[in-house]
Amino acid sequence: MQFSADDERHMREALQLAALGQGAAEPNPMVGCVLVQHGQVIGRGYHAKYGGPHAERAALSDCGDKQVNGATAYVTLEPCCHHGKTPPCTDALIAAKVARVVIAQQDPFGLVDGGGIDQLKAAGISVQVGLLEAEAQRLNAPYRKLLATGRPWVIAKWAMTLDGKLATHTGHSRWISNELARERVHQLRGRMDAIVVGSRTAQLDDPLLTVRPAGLRTPLRVVVDGDATLSPTHQLVQTAREVPVLVAVKAEADPARCAALQQAGCEIFAGGGADHGQRLDALLIELGQRRLTNILVEGGAGLLGQFLALGQIDEVFAFIAPKLIGGAQAPSPIGGDGWSDMSEALALSDVSIESLGDNVLMHGLAGNNFTKR
Amino acid sequence: MQFSADDERHMREALQLAALGQGAAEPNPMVGCVLVQHGQVIGRGYHAKYGGPHAERAALSDCGDKQVNGATAYVTLEPCCHHGKTPPCTDALIAAKVARVVIAQQDPFGLVDGGGIDQLKAAGISVQVGLLEAEAQRLNAPYRKLLATGRPWVIAKWAMTLDGKLATHTGHSRWISNELARERVHQLRGRMDAIVVGSRTAQLDDPLLTVRPAGLRTPLRVVVDGDATLSPTHQLVQTAREVPVLVAVKAEADPARCAALQQAGCEIFAGGGADHGQRLDALLIELGQRRLTNILVEGGAGLLGQFLALGQIDEVFAFIAPKLIGGAQAPSPIGGDGWSDMSEALALSDVSIESLGDNVLMHGLAGNNFTKR
Repeated sequence: MQFSADDERHMREALQLAALGQGAAEPNPMVGCVLVQHGQVIGRGYHAKYGGPHAERAALSDCGDKQVNGATAYVTLEPCCHHGKTPPCTDALIAAKVARVVIAQQDPFGLVDGGGIDQLKAAGISVQVGLLEAEAQRLNAPYRKLLATGRPWVIAKWAMTLDGKLATHTGHSRWISNELARERVHQLRGRMDAIVVGSRTAQLDDPLLTVRPAGLRTPLRVVVDGDATLSPTHQLVQTAREVPVLVAVKAEADPARCAALQQAGCEIFAGGGADHGQRLDALLIELGQRRLTNILVEGGAGLLGQFLALGQIDEVFAFIAPKLIGGAQAPSPIGGDGWSDMSEALALSDVSIESLGDNVLMHGLAGNNFTKR
Repeated sequence: MQFSADDERHMREALQLAALGQGAAEPNPMVGCVLVQHGQVIGRGYHAKYGGPHAERAALSDCGDKQVNGATAYVTLEPCCHHGKTPPCTDALIAAKVARVVIAQQDPFGLVDGGGIDQLKAAGISVQVGLLEAEAQRLNAPYRKLLATGRPWVIAKWAMTLDGKLATHTGHSRWISNELARERVHQLRGRMDAIVVGSRTAQLDDPLLTVRPAGLRTPLRVVVDGDATLSPTHQLVQTAREVPVLVAVKAEADPARCAALQQAGCEIFAGGGADHGQRLDALLIELGQRRLTNILVEGGAGLLGQFLALGQIDEVFAFIAPKLIGGAQAPSPIGGDGWSDMSEALALSDVSIESLGDNVLMHGLAGNNFTKR
C-alpha cells in the first residue's frame, strides 16, 4: 500500500475532526482536514456547520502565517470542485500550493464524483485516494445513503425491559428507562432531522417528541397515521405551530379530520400506495427529497416492524432496563410479521455497549455503508 | 463501628476465598477464613467441597507450624458448633487458642444459629459479628433462601435477540446467541442442582440440558409437563438412564403416559394443587426437600411467567444477541399475564454487564438476600 503509518495517524485525526460536525453539518457530509509540513501538523479543520466553511478552508485558516507551500493535506472526503454555498476547495488547495493531497473516500455527490481529484491532479498535485476508506464511509453512511437511495438514514430507538417489553400488557410504559437513558435519548434527538412515531404510540403516550434541552437541530415531528386519528387535544397537535408536525395519512383518510389537523398547524402528507409498506416508503422518499439525512424512529412495535420488513433500519439504539414485567401480550420492540428463520435475522455490526447507571445502551449498525459510487 | 480498615481488608479476602467454593460446597454454605497474627496473614482456607473440611479447619492447616495462639480469625459465617460430616469448628478454634474471631454473618441454620458464637465466647474468645454482613449474606443468598423458605434459589436464564425475542414467530431459535454465550451457559449449568424447562420448550427444542464439558455437578433435569406430553423419542427421555430426569405432571395426567416415561428411566413427580402456580410451588418445595440449592430455569416464556407471578425469580442471566427478527407473535422471554403497571415490575439490583464477543450478558439479582434469621 502507498500509505505510511504517519499517513494513517494523520488521517485518523482528520476523521476524528470530521465527526465533530455531526448534527450540524448535515445535509452536507462530515469532513475533517489536517495539514502537515515536514512531519508537523500545521493546521486542523472540519466542516462545523452547514453553510459554513469546508474542512479544507478551515484547516488552511488554522495555519495562520505558517508555510503551507509544499505541505500534505489529509482530507476525509474528496475536496469539492463546484460552487455551492462556498467556493470550491480545490481552488483553495491549489492556491495554497500544497504538494500532496491524501483522500479517504471519493465524494459520490454528482457535482464532485472524481472531479475534485482530477482538478488537483491537473494542477500538478500528487493525489492518493483510499486511506481509511471504510471508516470514512461508515462516518458518512447517512450522507451516502441519501445520495444512493434518495431515502434518509433510519435509526431505530427503543427502551425495553430486560424481558424484552416496550410496555406492560395494558400499554403502560412510564418509566421503563432511567433518567440517564432518557437524557441520552434527548441528546440523540438533538442531532436528528426528524422523529417518527406510529399513530398508536402518539395516542397512547401522547408524547411531545421535542428535544429537551434544545440540541443542534430541531427535528421535524412525523406521525405515521393512516386514518388521521390524531386529535387537536394531543400535545403534538397543540404544539404544531411551535415545532413542525407532519402527519402521514392514506389517500382515503377522512378529509375533515385532515383539515382539522391542518388548521391546528400540522402538515398533511398523503402519499404512497395501497399497503403500509408502499406508503411508508413514499414517506421516506418525501423526507429524502427534503434532504433530511437522519431520522429517528421511536416506535411503536408495529411501525418498527414495517421498517424492518422494508429493509429500512440502518442503525439501532436499544436501551435496556433491568426490570421484569412479563406478559405474553406485552409488546416487544419490533412487531409486524417478523422473519420466520433465524438465518433471516438482521445482524448488527460495530456493536457497542454503554452503561447508563443500571441501564444499558446497546448500539449497532445494520452494516450497509452505501459504498456504491 | 468496632471494625478497622485492616479488619475489613481481611474479611474481604475471606469472602473472596469463600466464593471459590461455589458449585462444590452446596448444599452447605460457602465459607472463607483468614487467620491473622500480628497483622500478618498466617493461614487461608475455604470450604472447598461438600463433605470436606470447613473453612476454619482448612485455614488452621494452612498455618503449618506458624504460631496460631493469640491470632484473629476472620470467618464469613458463624463457625459451626455441631457434629455434622465433620467435627465442630468451634472446637478447633478454641483448641488453637485464637484470641479473637470476627464473623460476617450469623448462621441461620437451626443447629448453629448463635450457638457457635456462644461457645466461642464461653471459651473466653473475643467475638465480633456483622463485618461486611450484607456482602456475606448476598454470597450465600441461595443457602439462606433454602433455609428460610424451603425452596431453592431460582436463576432465570434466557437468550434473546436485541428486539426481545426468544424465537421467531415460527418457534425457530437456533441460534440466537453466539458460541461464547453458549459456552457461558454450560459454565453456569455446571454449578446448578437442577435445570428446569417447560414442556413446550422440551418439545420444540428437544434439548439435552446436560453440561458440556462436565462441570462441578450434574444437574437434575426437570420438565414441567402437566399432561405428560414428553415422548420416549425425546433426547431427554432417551438419556434418562445416564442423567436423571424428573417429569412434574398433574395428578390427573394419563397414567399410561406416565408409566411409559418411568419405564424409560424418568422419575414422575405428581404434586400440587389445581392451578399451575400451586403445582409449580409444590415442585419447588419438593426440590427444596431434596436440598437442591440452585436451580436454573431455561424457559420457555410461559414457565418463566409462572415463576415471575409466584415471586420466585431470584437472579437473572439474560444473554442478548445483536440481531433483529421482528414479529408481534414471536415470544419474548417472560410470558404469562405479566404485571399491568410499571410500578409492579420486578427491579433487579447489583446489575452487571459482560461482553461475550458481540453478545452481551446482563446479570442481576431480584434483591432478596433472605436476611431473616
